Amino acid sequence: MGLQPETAACAPETPISLAPTFEGDFVIDGIFPLEAGGALPAPTLHYAVYGKPNAARDNVVLVSHALSGSALVAEWWPRLFVQPGILGGLLDLETDCVLGINILGSCYGSTGPGSVNPATGRLYGPDFPLLGIRDIVRSQALLLDSLGIRRLKLAIGASIGGMQALEWGVLYPERVERIVSIGVAPLGAMGLGLNHLQRRAIELDPLWNGGRYSPDSPPRQGLSLARALAVCTYKSAGLFEERFARKPDRSGEDPFAGSRNDSVATGLNGGRFDVAGYLDHQGERFNSRFDANSYLAITRTMDTFDPVRGYTSATEAYGRIQAAVTLIGISSDWLFPPADIRAMAAQISAAGVRCEYREMQSSHGHDAFLAEPDALLRLLQIPDL
Amino acid sequence: MGLQPETAACAPETPISLAPTFEGDFVIDGIFPLEAGGALPAPTLHYAVYGKPNAARDNVVLVSHALSGSALVAEWWPRLFVQPGILGGLLDLETDCVLGINILGSCYGSTGPGSVNPATGRLYGPDFPLLGIRDIVRSQALLLDSLGIRRLKLAIGASIGGMQALEWGVLYPERVERIVSIGVAPLGAMGLGLNHLQRRAIELDPLWNGGRYSPDSPPRQGLSLARALAVCTYKSAGLFEERFARKPDRSGEDPFAGSRNDSVATGLNGGRFDVAGYLDHQGERFNSRFDANSYLAITRTMDTFDPVRGYTSATEAYGRIQAAVTLIGISSDWLFPPADIRAMAAQISAAGVRCEYREMQSSHGHDAFLAEPDALLRLLQIPDL
Repeated sequence: MGLQPETAACAPETPISLAPTFEGDFVIDGIFPLEAGGALPAPTLHYAVYGKPNAARDNVVLVSHALSGSALVAEWWPRLFVQPGILGGLLDLETDCVLGINILGSCYGSTGPGSVNPATGRLYGPDFPLLGIRDIVRSQALLLDSLGIRRLKLAIGASIGGMQALEWGVLYPERVERIVSIGVAPLGAMGLGLNHLQRRAIELDPLWNGGRYSPDSPPRQGLSLARALAVCTYKSAGLFEERFARKPDRSGEDPFAGSRNDSVATGLNGGRFDVAGYLDHQGERFNSRFDANSYLAITRTMDTFDPVRGYTSATEAYGRIQAAVTLIGISSDWLFPPADIRAMAAQISAAGVRCEYREMQSSHGHDAFLAEPDALLRLLQIPDL
Repeated sequence: MGLQPETAACAPETPISLAPTFEGDFVIDGIFPLEAGGALPAPTLHYAVYGKPNAARDNVVLVSHALSGSALVAEWWPRLFVQPGILGGLLDLETDCVLGINILGSCYGSTGPGSVNPATGRLYGPDFPLLGIRDIVRSQALLLDSLGIRRLKLAIGASIGGMQALEWGVLYPERVERIVSIGVAPLGAMGLGLNHLQRRAIELDPLWNGGRYSPDSPPRQGLSLARALAVCTYKSAGLFEERFARKPDRSGEDPFAGSRNDSVATGLNGGRFDVAGYLDHQGERFNSRFDANSYLAITRTMDTFDPVRGYTSATEAYGRIQAAVTLIGISSDWLFPPADIRAMAAQISAAGVRCEYREMQSSHGHDAFLAEPDALLRLLQIPDL
């Protein structure tokens, strides 16, 4: 790179050294059957490789993305990588090979609702079948087969990515050496309820059209509202209080004046509090990078996550795991409360698996894995992990 | 009544003895100016009286309602009344006179967005002006004047009702002897954000029409979604977990099967978890008894509540209070966290006011004042309140 440390510290989020060594597609041969009963004919997985597999192909780390992530790990989780002049990276491309795979159902290159259904010749849209986390992991295993990777050095992820990391251990015990799963457990009732309401927001949009919306006029307001609600669940009341409290919107709107309502939908933006302006902005921004049908598909996948479902007991399910497991809870996470993650860690340990629970102290809520990567990395680098 | 205690205990929610002695309207004379700058010409207050004022008119208790309540106190808070054969009532109509007043902005008889604007001859709809809690209290004081009630024995309420009770003490120090305010403090950033998203849900409904919807085809789905989200904020994660956990919807839907999306909007109700079915049901039910524009108006009023705004300090504002004040927090309330209420109680005490804080232990969240009235009454009847 030739950058001095002090320069490198100011480098953009994706320094050139973190460009993938390969980015491309893998097509699964034939019909890919799904846990919930449907199937996807010859689905595509879009993936990216950083660094290189060694001769033994035993240096591969799978970094699984969350709801709105992609195969391009370095774009959304750059701090995970060892970089010149920046302390704390976990994955060193001198020795590690990092694999990122866009999940089925997403809109970043893998088959999802925005793909053409070969059976009908038109977009899947609302006909896209329900996928479980296990389906996603099984599809990833097929890609690994094709790449000649028998065993992962590490499966790591947060949120939906953490669900995948853990299911890797249950589904393919012999194929993963170590698991780090951050901020996940089976979703509780409040989380299930709030995810459901996000889907209803999308479906309420006048442009929704039962999911057969035109790509040129998607249900932007519905997706924006869904995302804004999701942001509430990703952050914490404490963080919002610290950032926004009861301040008026920074653009100068006065929540204590006038009769105008505060809708962005009607263009009458009067009278918002700062937190409302922030949520609207987060929602609108999301439209430029995500698809409503993918949002519906992936949040349903998130809802179904339960590694024990289908087994006779937690001991039977988790007892399959051969990897060393680290579960990380985030102190202020109310979507996946740390108590739930600690309880899951206890179940995994009780099944005879080497599993430890660590808790990240952060006011950033579920999002802390992205918002405070340094704190996360410090927690990951404690010896004996 | 002639009912034996054991029979009375099984009486319907509003025994005949709890019928109002008077129910009617009071019209404020002339233009009623509003804190935020607008005005209401000759607004109506619908009110109900239970029991009778005594000769000195010093036995009047004002019970203020929350967002979706009405003047008919005994319909939504029956357990507050002393009733034959039921232990624990607080207000005895043998000696107390209970007054309930529907708030401006509501849809239960007082002037609100569904009323005709005399200035235009058409419904206010989205033109209904922004009201503060102070406006509501000032309108109530005018009604009291007309009834010859100089001073309230007690002002009591929960949620928006509790905001009114407290503002009574600040605005009219000499007119209220005792205040009980339950489950309120100025709303924090998370609460402000979630209220905002509820309003956006209403405005997203295809039938919204900028608030000029037809009374025959109101934005039902939007109001339903808003209410469902509100219900999440009124309850607690712990209560949802206890009631619903990850159970499938009780009607037999399977969240782990099929590709159908889970929208009530599209009629495709497949695949919901029980909590989702519950939230949808709560939302739909709400449509039969509430108006979308009133919902927008009152949630904005709720947002603006801050007794200190406009004063130079908390001490100046709260120091005005002459009443003895009891603030009650609810342990599991995340819309109005008990810590916020305790902090407000400390501010009020620091201003030299006789103020105590009590905490209701309940898993029911903000709704506990309605869901567990007996526990609330026990807390209210501790001596020295």
